[in-house]
Amino acid sequence: MNRVRMGMAGGGEGAFIGEIHRAAARLDGDIELVSGAFSSDPTVSQRTGAALGLNPDRVYGSWRDMLAREAKLPEEVRMEFVAIVTPNHLHFPIAQAAMELGFHVLSEKPATCTLAECRTLADVLTRRGLCYALTHTYLGYPLVVEARARVLDGDIGNIRRVSIEYSQGWLSDQVENEGNRQAQWRTDPQRAGPAGSVGDIGVHAFNLAEYVSGREVAELCAVLDAAVAGRALDDQAAAFLRFDNGARGTLSVSQISAGEENALRIGVYGDRGGIIWSHREPNSLCLLYLDGSSRTVRAGNNVAELHPATRALCRTPAGHPEGFIEAFANLYRMFATDVRAMAGGSAAQASPATMRSALRGMSFIDAMIRSSGAGQRWAALQT
Amino acid sequence: MNRVRMGMAGGGEGAFIGEIHRAAARLDGDIELVSGAFSSDPTVSQRTGAALGLNPDRVYGSWRDMLAREAKLPEEVRMEFVAIVTPNHLHFPIAQAAMELGFHVLSEKPATCTLAECRTLADVLTRRGLCYALTHTYLGYPLVVEARARVLDGDIGNIRRVSIEYSQGWLSDQVENEGNRQAQWRTDPQRAGPAGSVGDIGVHAFNLAEYVSGREVAELCAVLDAAVAGRALDDQAAAFLRFDNGARGTLSVSQISAGEENALRIGVYGDRGGIIWSHREPNSLCLLYLDGSSRTVRAGNNVAELHPATRALCRTPAGHPEGFIEAFANLYRMFATDVRAMAGGSAAQASPATMRSALRGMSFIDAMIRSSGAGQRWAALQT
Amino acid sequence: MNRVRMGMAGGGEGAFIGEIHRAAARLDGDIELVSGAFSSDPTVSQRTGAALGLNPDRVYGSWRDMLAREAKLPEEVRMEFVAIVTPNHLHFPIAQAAMELGFHVLSEKPATCTLAECRTLADVLTRRGLCYALTHTYLGYPLVVEARARVLDGDIGNIRRVSIEYSQGWLSDQVENEGNRQAQWRTDPQRAGPAGSVGDIGVHAFNLAEYVSGREVAELCAVLDAAVAGRALDDQAAAFLRFDNGARGTLSVSQISAGEENALRIGVYGDRGGIIWSHREPNSLCLLYLDGSSRTVRAGNNVAELHPATRALCRTPAGHPEGFIEAFANLYRMFATDVRAMAGGSAAQASPATMRSALRGMSFIDAMIRSSGAGQRWAALQT
Amino acid sequence: MNRVRMGMAGGGEGAFIGEIHRAAARLDGDIELVSGAFSSDPTVSQRTGAALGLNPDRVYGSWRDMLAREAKLPEEVRMEFVAIVTPNHLHFPIAQAAMELGFHVLSEKPATCTLAECRTLADVLTRRGLCYALTHTYLGYPLVVEARARVLDGDIGNIRRVSIEYSQGWLSDQVENEGNRQAQWRTDPQRAGPAGSVGDIGVHAFNLAEYVSGREVAELCAVLDAAVAGRALDDQAAAFLRFDNGARGTLSVSQISAGEENALRIGVYGDRGGIIWSHREPNSLCLLYLDGSSRTVRAGNNVAELHPATRALCRTPAGHPEGFIEAFANLYRMFATDVRAMAGGSAAQASPATMRSALRGMSFIDAMIRSSGAGQRWAALQT
Repeated sequence: MNRVRMGMAGGGEGAFIGEIHRAAARLDGDIELVSGAFSSDPTVSQRTGAALGLNPDRVYGSWRDMLAREAKLPEEVRMEFVAIVTPNHLHFPIAQAAMELGFHVLSEKPATCTLAECRTLADVLTRRGLCYALTHTYLGYPLVVEARARVLDGDIGNIRRVSIEYSQGWLSDQVENEGNRQAQWRTDPQRAGPAGSVGDIGVHAFNLAEYVSGREVAELCAVLDAAVAGRALDDQAAAFLRFDNGARGTLSVSQISAGEENALRIGVYGDRGGIIWSHREPNSLCLLYLDGSSRTVRAGNNVAELHPATRALCRTPAGHPEGFIEAFANLYRMFATDVRAMAGGSAAQASPATMRSALRGMSFIDAMIRSSGAGQRWAALQT
Repeated sequence: MNRVRMGMAGGGEGAFIGEIHRAAARLDGDIELVSGAFSSDPTVSQRTGAALGLNPDRVYGSWRDMLAREAKLPEEVRMEFVAIVTPNHLHFPIAQAAMELGFHVLSEKPATCTLAECRTLADVLTRRGLCYALTHTYLGYPLVVEARARVLDGDIGNIRRVSIEYSQGWLSDQVENEGNRQAQWRTDPQRAGPAGSVGDIGVHAFNLAEYVSGREVAELCAVLDAAVAGRALDDQAAAFLRFDNGARGTLSVSQISAGEENALRIGVYGDRGGIIWSHREPNSLCLLYLDGSSRTVRAGNNVAELHPATRALCRTPAGHPEGFIEAFANLYRMFATDVRAMAGGSAAQASPATMRSALRGMSFIDAMIRSSGAGQRWAALQT
Repeated sequence: MNRVRMGMAGGGEGAFIGEIHRAAARLDGDIELVSGAFSSDPTVSQRTGAALGLNPDRVYGSWRDMLAREAKLPEEVRMEFVAIVTPNHLHFPIAQAAMELGFHVLSEKPATCTLAECRTLADVLTRRGLCYALTHTYLGYPLVVEARARVLDGDIGNIRRVSIEYSQGWLSDQVENEGNRQAQWRTDPQRAGPAGSVGDIGVHAFNLAEYVSGREVAELCAVLDAAVAGRALDDQAAAFLRFDNGARGTLSVSQISAGEENALRIGVYGDRGGIIWSHREPNSLCLLYLDGSSRTVRAGNNVAELHPATRALCRTPAGHPEGFIEAFANLYRMFATDVRAMAGGSAAQASPATMRSALRGMSFIDAMIRSSGAGQRWAALQT
Repeated sequence: MNRVRMGMAGGGEGAFIGEIHRAAARLDGDIELVSGAFSSDPTVSQRTGAALGLNPDRVYGSWRDMLAREAKLPEEVRMEFVAIVTPNHLHFPIAQAAMELGFHVLSEKPATCTLAECRTLADVLTRRGLCYALTHTYLGYPLVVEARARVLDGDIGNIRRVSIEYSQGWLSDQVENEGNRQAQWRTDPQRAGPAGSVGDIGVHAFNLAEYVSGREVAELCAVLDAAVAGRALDDQAAAFLRFDNGARGTLSVSQISAGEENALRIGVYGDRGGIIWSHREPNSLCLLYLDGSSRTVRAGNNVAELHPATRALCRTPAGHPEGFIEAFANLYRMFATDVRAMAGGSAAQASPATMRSALRGMSFIDAMIRSSGAGQRWAALQT
């Protein structure tokens, strides 16, 4: 089987997530990085490409160049999809231009800076008929997939409550003024868009809440806040959620919870039981039942009780911890499956976070900002 | 040293918390239960008293009887304080009547059904000069005391964020219609007062948030909801909090998180670090620091790094789990200390939850109901 | 119901375990401490008794006095049983003398200093027909009782393997030379007997292994060691175990595992599954099955899946941590039940650790010393 | 930088560890799989190679063929090292033949079937001057590296005690008779060598004990046992350890602990503190101190308190779980570093488990078998 050919926009030196994407793409050996525009500085881009062993002819000084020149290469040579790992403000123009030229797109979240941009993107996608997916990392964890499957199976009954919290502490200080490049663009409205913590981690939490519960948020009431003086964007936020079936939820995110690493935890409760997953121990899933008994389901490709689709996402038997990179690699593997399916004339249906998720996520950000701006008025999600 | 003499209102057969109070009062051997009005049914009351080995003359058929007749006993014989463990609607009249007759009062939470009642009670207390305290259980855990001490010491810097969640699942079904007496009165506005989960566990969460953070909530924005059809009172609720120093917080409570037992967890974050305590493992306290390092502080009367006041609340060395009853017993021990202090002419200052906590708690409940009733308008806490 | 009357030998100022025994005896309100010989120093004994509110006439300057004089009191006044909480070397003479005078005995472990003494004690007990039990604390934890019940029910099949480890760190330094009274007698062969860590905690581990597995150790191969220079008794030890059904086991104890508190953990494995209990989280029991699934059973008087006998040992619903003192109190409660049963002419069968356990424990210690002394030769347990 | 060229012996369809090795080799992008003899069945070998996208000319029907034919390729084309992932009995002949032909060797453990074979291998290595390393997986975990570094720094003082347990349950049934290929060769003395659980996981435990403690085992006293009827090799074993500095230890391994996954845990205790690492949560390291305080050190490339060498083994910031494959990839990365260093004329010193570890491991297995066979006589490790 031929490897799927990938190009990358962003991910030069000093970037965090770019190397994670590349490691994820390499892990299963069915994707090949063939081109890149790793930086707006052509020297940096070439240096990154050289370190990665890329053909210098396929390393570009700008994403526009990459798209234009790759499009002119023979079909069996040129990249098939572009992975977008730039700061937020470039997600939209790159994705739009790439799809217009016929490239599939795998993009970092949030999909765009505004809901309007995302709708434009959805139109392009519909017109061009390509694969588009977001790297909503947590949907790549096998037990998150299992959690959703169990909820959809009715294991915990009708959903009545969702509780989700995502806490980080790395923005507790004004690190954006101390040379931290990750912090610089994330706290800058020009590059991050109108939301800070809400766009950076809130959209992950929201996405996970809808994915695991199998329900969509109808409306929300939110408060956004910047705890650190002088910060233009929110660094903490919370929301009350009302789901389409009447279930209630709370969502709480923070990047100023000093000392917290990357603490994401979701609990979904139905009228028959509950299900809890925490990023701190991603290889365990906790199921609670009304009679007080509880079960721990463990990840592993040998675990009989898991849904087959879950087992397929595990590379090792139970007891061999898998983590963040493997979750990411699962998203890449599913996207490669989609690209091949479409090339073969079939429908792409492997990736868990597609344009629908993109629109939902941008609607969420939009509603959070509207509700908070209006003094905690309820805002409907518009999709 | 003479034992402090205690009477009890409520706590007859079928009650949960009454026996916990009695065990707590017995544990350290410095309190003696001498009288009781355990039930409004005199037969039940006598049967409970007999099982406890009480003198039948000191077992009464109503709390009014108990107060009236105990008041006529010689000073060195009659009960010194009354422990109120009835359903909520009786907290106020019993406490009021008891104090008017000169008895100290140790009451279950919430202090009263309404803020107005609580203010009345505060006036009586001021006029009569007695000991009044609430059994806010969690304030009896040594590491909760330690958490507050460390926060007040400035260990984690200026407080910026408080996150508190208290989840139970026992009201997931309509157990109030299936003979569960605990559920019956807690879901009945006549006996529980105007709040359900907010009055039953929300006030614990609020109290803990203010106690550990050392800050007071200035205003809140809340949503109350009854997930189970036909329920008159809230069984889940959430609030955004704004503290007097500008810190933000989220509070989330539920009694319909199917499968959850009694899951209370608090995180307080300052600009230098964070502190986390969870009821699931009450003998550990987690401290997080900005540099990513973390420490686990353990309970134990031999643990050198604990504040002396914390060590004094531990009955065993580290590694010997202490729990709910010991925490309760600490509240009883502190109340007995207060009663003795006042008898000796000194100020009572041992109990952590006094009339100030009662007023704060009722203000919280009042604000929660007002904010939710007004469609998530911010409500100030009035004390 | 009248309270069972208890006397205490040992447990004066500076003792750790005496106050735990007293708190445990008080907790349920069905035992009354009426007499004590708390110290070999009469002044200390009186001071302790006064602090406990005892009648000074019932506080004695020596255990011999206590036994002799209590025996002369009217039957309905005198103590019914004596709790022995002295250093090890006094367990035997006090228990022997007490039983000869007709008192029931509840003793700290180890039962005696030598197996021969224990056999003598067993003869006295047979002759006198009294209640005798050991306070093997861990057998008072509800989920340890549940673990045994599930094993005996065949839940995990035929037992093939037992792994037990008990680690402490408090003897890492020569604290016996720095005024630590607990350490002084425990490291002194004259008062502790011929075993150090083996007699202090090894016998707990052994007792728990036999209790939970429902099997008896047939023979063992052991190594005892004193890690701290100048120490006459072992402060760490390990053994290979062979059970009566051929199952194998390992037992490892240490009092020089620097930083460990009181870390006791047992795993029992059959041909169908395994069961794990750890003192660090005593309110959870972990069941593992061959197919890789696992269940967490939680303590609580409302937990339907627990055996009724287990539920009866829980004072609170699930989610309210119970601990060391409650476990101890369960042993006291069961002993009181035995005393009452025998007084009523019935058989005493509530206490989990009786003379049989005493003989097993002393046989264990005897075999550990013989095996280690003979250079790791296998030694049979003689009972 | 050119990729290091790798060949693989073993790892065809149905193998577990072969794909882990390949994923590990791919993860960082600096190693390229260029050749393979994946199976003794040439059809299977070609099919595996095709699935991996290998040039069919570089896929061989036997390891002998691979070695012979690769050796004739131009230096800049042929594989530089061979990864040996076959059943145990082939480790020795392949490694020997490979080194004689000038190929570096990265081998699965145990290095050989007997100590004598390993000594022969050591002689070949000395004569040929190549890189040789074992994939002792657990030494690839960043916090295992950190644990050793802290112990060597003297953080916990002089080592006095090591406790190590490695429990699995997958051989609880006679799965070797039910078509489980992993079990078939591991329970067959012809393919596994003279040790079962001791060779499969015991040697991991032993290796970890010496690595973390920084001490070597001088002698041991062991018992090996086959719990499952009809099994020719041990499926559980235990040992008392005596280290070169007089420290004591216990080692316990089992493959019949029904329900256990892959539970490896080590505790090392010195006279100033202890250090605990568990495979279940590999991204946390627990440090215990004599005063009862404890610290949790977390993995992450941003964690300031980690040794630089530890940080270099982390691919993500704290809070992003890394696991088994990343640990394996660290071993591959270090081996590639060694291969490059040697090619550049420098010393190879990155890999943590070299020929010295191989000899130690085989001495351990040899001593375990001798001690157990002699009825628990102490056996010295001969290296």
